[in-house]
This record gives sequence, structure tokens and C-alpha cells, in this order.
Amino acid sequence: MTSPQTDTNAQQTVRVELGTRSYDIAIGRGLLYQAGEKIANLLPKARVAIITDETVAGLHLQALQASLDAADVDHVSFTIPAGESSKRFELFDRLCDDVLGARLERGDAIVALGGGVVGDLSGFVAASVRRGMKFIQIPTTLLAQVDSSVGGKTGINSRHGKNLVGAFYQPALVLADTAVLDTLPLRDFRAGYAEVAKYGLLGDEPFFAWLEANWQAVFAGGPERDEAVARSCQAKADVVAADEFEGGRRALLNLGHTFGHALESAVAYATERLVHGEGVSIGMMLAHEFSQKLGLLSEDDVARVKRHLLEVGLPIRIQDIPGQMPPADTLLDIIAQDKKVSRGELTFILTRKIGESFVEKGVDRAQVQEFLKEKLDA
Amino acid sequence: MTSPQTDTNAQQTVRVELGTRSYDIAIGRGLLYQAGEKIANLLPKARVAIITDETVAGLHLQALQASLDAADVDHVSFTIPAGESSKRFELFDRLCDDVLGARLERGDAIVALGGGVVGDLSGFVAASVRRGMKFIQIPTTLLAQVDSSVGGKTGINSRHGKNLVGAFYQPALVLADTAVLDTLPLRDFRAGYAEVAKYGLLGDEPFFAWLEANWQAVFAGGPERDEAVARSCQAKADVVAADEFEGGRRALLNLGHTFGHALESAVAYATERLVHGEGVSIGMMLAHEFSQKLGLLSEDDVARVKRHLLEVGLPIRIQDIPGQMPPADTLLDIIAQDKKVSRGELTFILTRKIGESFVEKGVDRAQVQEFLKEKLDA
Repeated sequence: MTSPQTDTNAQQTVRVELGTRSYDIAIGRGLLYQAGEKIANLLPKARVAIITDETVAGLHLQALQASLDAADVDHVSFTIPAGESSKRFELFDRLCDDVLGARLERGDAIVALGGGVVGDLSGFVAASVRRGMKFIQIPTTLLAQVDSSVGGKTGINSRHGKNLVGAFYQPALVLADTAVLDTLPLRDFRAGYAEVAKYGLLGDEPFFAWLEANWQAVFAGGPERDEAVARSCQAKADVVAADEFEGGRRALLNLGHTFGHALESAVAYATERLVHGEGVSIGMMLAHEFSQKLGLLSEDDVARVKRHLLEVGLPIRIQDIPGQMPPADTLLDIIAQDKKVSRGELTFILTRKIGESFVEKGVDRAQVQEFLKEKLDA
Repeated sequence: MTSPQTDTNAQQTVRVELGTRSYDIAIGRGLLYQAGEKIANLLPKARVAIITDETVAGLHLQALQASLDAADVDHVSFTIPAGESSKRFELFDRLCDDVLGARLERGDAIVALGGGVVGDLSGFVAASVRRGMKFIQIPTTLLAQVDSSVGGKTGINSRHGKNLVGAFYQPALVLADTAVLDTLPLRDFRAGYAEVAKYGLLGDEPFFAWLEANWQAVFAGGPERDEAVARSCQAKADVVAADEFEGGRRALLNLGHTFGHALESAVAYATERLVHGEGVSIGMMLAHEFSQKLGLLSEDDVARVKRHLLEVGLPIRIQDIPGQMPPADTLLDIIAQDKKVSRGELTFILTRKIGESFVEKGVDRAQVQEFLKEKLDA
């Protein structure tokens, strides 16, 4: 893993190395105000269609538009309703039509201003209009900055499940303005932080130790926040560069996600009960406890993970989710139906040590069932 | 240009070299009956969703299903209405949903059995479901065998124009059964032949000369038909391998298409007046005549092109299209609005000799206008 580069005005840049599709992630406070200049430099003469949601539009759209105006970048804006339900066919259709109606060409750019929903939907639009326009991400949530805006997964939901229709499509540039995160509700910041901690847990113990020492400054918004975002992006970029289309190593990014997705599904994605990052936090805790149960991981490491997730205020037990949860058998069925299950085998990301996770295929269904029963009865 | 390989049982194979996305086009009579075996060999254990249209289903679906059954390949079939109007959002949505409902996974395959409409729509479905499934083309028209099934362009139409939403997505295998072409109406075969002749005209004079000598056998269905399909696929494969995402040389494949598309648009894609290949035939004739007018091409070459297109029964003049055509100014406006126009400049494929075409950007609008007026008044 290489270190992110710091440039003179306290911005950091992470390079995602994907041959001709390589791109930069710029990280720093106030980047939104430099968006126009950066886009004009990267794509001279390109026109821009901003896609954002109603919440983010109220907070940040004017700043972005003013920055584009100042750089003489011609732009139009399309605003969608906030929330997961916008990741659907009708809006994909409408946005493709809107972008074509604005007469944007293949060399022009879609700019996604928002969280994961806006980024995923806009990215699929950018991938599909004229078989691929330029795509720029300006993620406005911590989750989007450290996860969904890096790696090129775009898409929408189907009635059969989440993210089942989409494209692998890389952006030309990602601008992660860490000051924008000050407008996030604490719960959302904390949920995004679960993915930050994940990078330490899955492959970088020193980063996890750094987070244990510095998490308060990350939450407060000091230079440590930029550092945490940059190291997370770098970690994801390294994995994506090694496995763009998710054939192998990229699966490690799913640490905590097999259990987490099942929990999200069990509450029918009711975000007032559980948001994605909270599911990942509980899922990571379960993955470590399951690894311990299998004799892979020490009790000390489990305790250390638990301590850190608790101190930042993240949930760590299925019982932390408000309301009734289904029994172990039902959770297991949900896990078995997950799209990441290949031909009925259960695949889990397990770990031998903090920072040493690995992909385990063909995990015994009965052992998972027994483990879940124990946890639910605890 | 390399030569297609001939294997023992009179099949030819053209390899499309695209690194990890390379694939074979198999060409020969009766390949449909070997589809199950070939698919099982390429993708062991994969399940298959066949997408076809009502016309082709009546002619060839049973043969394909029987072949899959014989090879123990599990399959489902989805049939769409025949015709260009099926390339729309609602059917894309429905087919993605159908494929997901059949619980196909990322390693399973979409098989497109049909012409360009089925191939373009199915390819976009294959590109999008689970962010990319395996895709196999069994093109059943000459046009699809020599053009749309090679090169990875998939997509649907928008109300703003044709093929404006889609993906570059390469198949894992193309099976071109040349016996299936015996079920095509002559008019459709002839229209597809325009694209065959195009490969000679754009870059391979010896192939054009071979077609002048052998076109009757190509129409009749002898080994010459396989040869013509194979050489066409090889020509397209060579261009696509050099320029997968249409940045440069691939534009040569549009010889005849700038004028041709404008004519198709002028008749509002009424196929009873003009089908795509007929538009390409007239467009190629116009491109050669325009090249002559610009002093680039000899009168002899123009006469030779005209003679061949006439002898196979293709239209060569705007006046050959039944019904009223719009004036030159309107045609020019349509050309200027074409998606292949970059920032208002007119780009044409012109030619210095049969087999020596080139991309000319920034063609003078007034000269095109004058030329079209001459042709319409002729």
C-alpha cells in the first residue's frame, strides 16, 4: 500500500491506477469551491450536467454552480428526491432523457453531487448515455467519500434486490470535500465511519491503531479527518486496482457486509431502524466473533474491535437494532440468498488477526446457524 | 489484416482480440445445432436466458432449445415483439427483471437469438444485470452477422434518437449460422450485403473485387457466403481491436452511414420505404460521388461502385426511395444533428480509391449542401 500524496494547499490526492481509466481522488476542505477550476482543467470545453438530490441541493448546489460559473463551465442541474427509492428504473430513464434533452455529448460530464444514491444512479446514467460520458463524483457523505465513490460500481435497485442492475464504470475525477461532512447528521457520519474502520480491520492494523488514537479528531473535522478519508480511499483504490471486476481480492471489502446486508434486509431497509454503516458495524463485530468461534482469532482482538466500535457510538449487536428481529434461521436464509453467494455456497470474510482478513468459501451452514442462535439468545 | 481460420468441419473462426475480453466468432452452416455444445464447453454449468423476437422464435427457437437440452444446459426463454420499437426502456426494464426473476447469476449467460434489435437490447441487458453477465450472440440476419454482433455496441433508443442509451459490452462468443440466412427475405439479405460490400470499399479492394466475382454464390448460400461473412467479421474485428471505444479508426465503419442515417431519419425510419442497409447503400454511393466532386476519387472508381451495387439490386440514389423526400437543406440539418457530429463540425468518411477511405473532419457545410442539391435535382 502506497501513501496518499499531500500537495501544497493541504489537499491530498489518491490515484486509482486502472491503466487508461486511471483517475485521481482529491481530498481536502473546501474542494467544492474549486470544482469548476478542476473540471475545466481536466475536461476543457466540456459541458456539465449536475445530478443531485433535494437535500443536498439545498445545502451545496449553489456553491457548485457558482464555482462552475466562475470557471466558465456551462452547466445544467437535475434534482431527484432524496433516499434509496430514487435508485429505480423510472428515474434512470428520466435522467438519461434529461441529459440527452440538454444535448450533452460523449465528451461532456455528469457530475454527481450527493451521497451513495446520487452517485450510484448518476454513474449508471453516465455509463449509459451515448454508451459512456465523462463522470465526476463529488460525494457529500463520509460513506460515499470512502466507499461508494471509489471503485466504479454504479447501479439501481430491482424488485429482486439492491444494486442488481448497473455497470462497472469509473469516474474521471472524485472531489471529496471533507468540510461538506460538517453538514451531515452525526448518525450518518458515524455510519460512514464504520467503513473507515473496516479498512483498518480488513488489511491495515496500523491504520486501525491510528484510528483508535485519533477518531475524535476525525469526527471533529481536523486534518485527521482528511487523513482518514485519504487512507480509506487509498486502501479501496489498492484493492480495486488489483481486482476491478470483483473476481477475487475485492471481496475483502465485504468484511462485515454478509451479516450486515442480511440485517438491512431483515428490517426491510427501514433506515430509521438501521442504516448501511450500522449494519456493517454489527456485521464486522459478528465476523470477528464468528472468526473467534472458529478458533481463528484471539479474544483480545475481538475485545479491541468491540471497544473501538462502542467508543465511537456504533451498534455492535443484533439486539442494538430497535424493534423485533427475525430468528436465526430466517437470517441464514437471507444470507444464502445474497447476490454474493455463488451457487449456494456460503462465502464469508473471516479474519486471523486485526488487519488480516481473508475470503473463506464454502463456510458450513450449520456453524453459521449455531453462531447466530447463540448471538440472538445472548 | 489476418485471415480467418478454417477448421475441419468447414467452420471458420474469427478471433476478436481485446485482451482479457477477446472472443471467437464461429461462422458456418448449421452452427445453431451445435450451440448447446459450444456454450457448455465455453461456460460449464452456466444457465442460459435466451432472448429472441416473435418472428425468429417461430423459425429457430426450438432448434436452439433442443441443442441446449442435448448438452444439458438449463435454459429459459423470453420473447419480445419483432421490430425496432422493442429497443426501448420499458422492454429493457422488463427483461432485466425477467432475467433476475429467473435467478440467473453473474456467471450465467444471456443468449441473443435474432437480428440487430434483439442483439442490441439483449446486450444492454447482459451488460447491466448484476453489472455484467456473460453474453452470447446468435445473429440470424446477415446485417447482424457482419455488423451489429461484432464490436460490442449495445443499446436502446431514446425519444432523442437511436442507440443513445447503452453500453460497450463484448460478447463471450458469437455463433453465425449462415444456413439460418436462407430464411431471410431477399430484401433483408440484400440490405445486409450492403455492409459486406462496405468492408471492401472502406479498406480492402481485393475483397471488393472478390465480391464482384462471387456475389451470386454469396446470395445462393455456397461456401462463398461463409467466406464473405468471415472476411467481413475479420475486417470489423480488426478495426474494433484497434479502437474499441470509437476514438478514431473505428469511425471508418461509418462509410456511407452519415448520408444513410440522414435518409433513414428523413423517412422517420419507415422500413417499408428504407431499411438500414439500403440507406447505407445509397449513402456509400453518395460518399463516393462526393469524394469525386471534391477531386479525391476517379470517375472509374465511382462507376465501379455503382455497377456492383446496381447488379446486386441495391438502391443507389435518393430518388430510389419511394415517396416524397425532404429538400437538401433539411437533409443537411439532419446530418448536422447526427450524434456523430462533434461540436458542430461535419465529419465524413471520404475515399481516395476503392479500399482507401479516411475520416475527414471539418467538411465544409456549403459543399455538402451544394452536392445534395445536385443529387436531388439530378
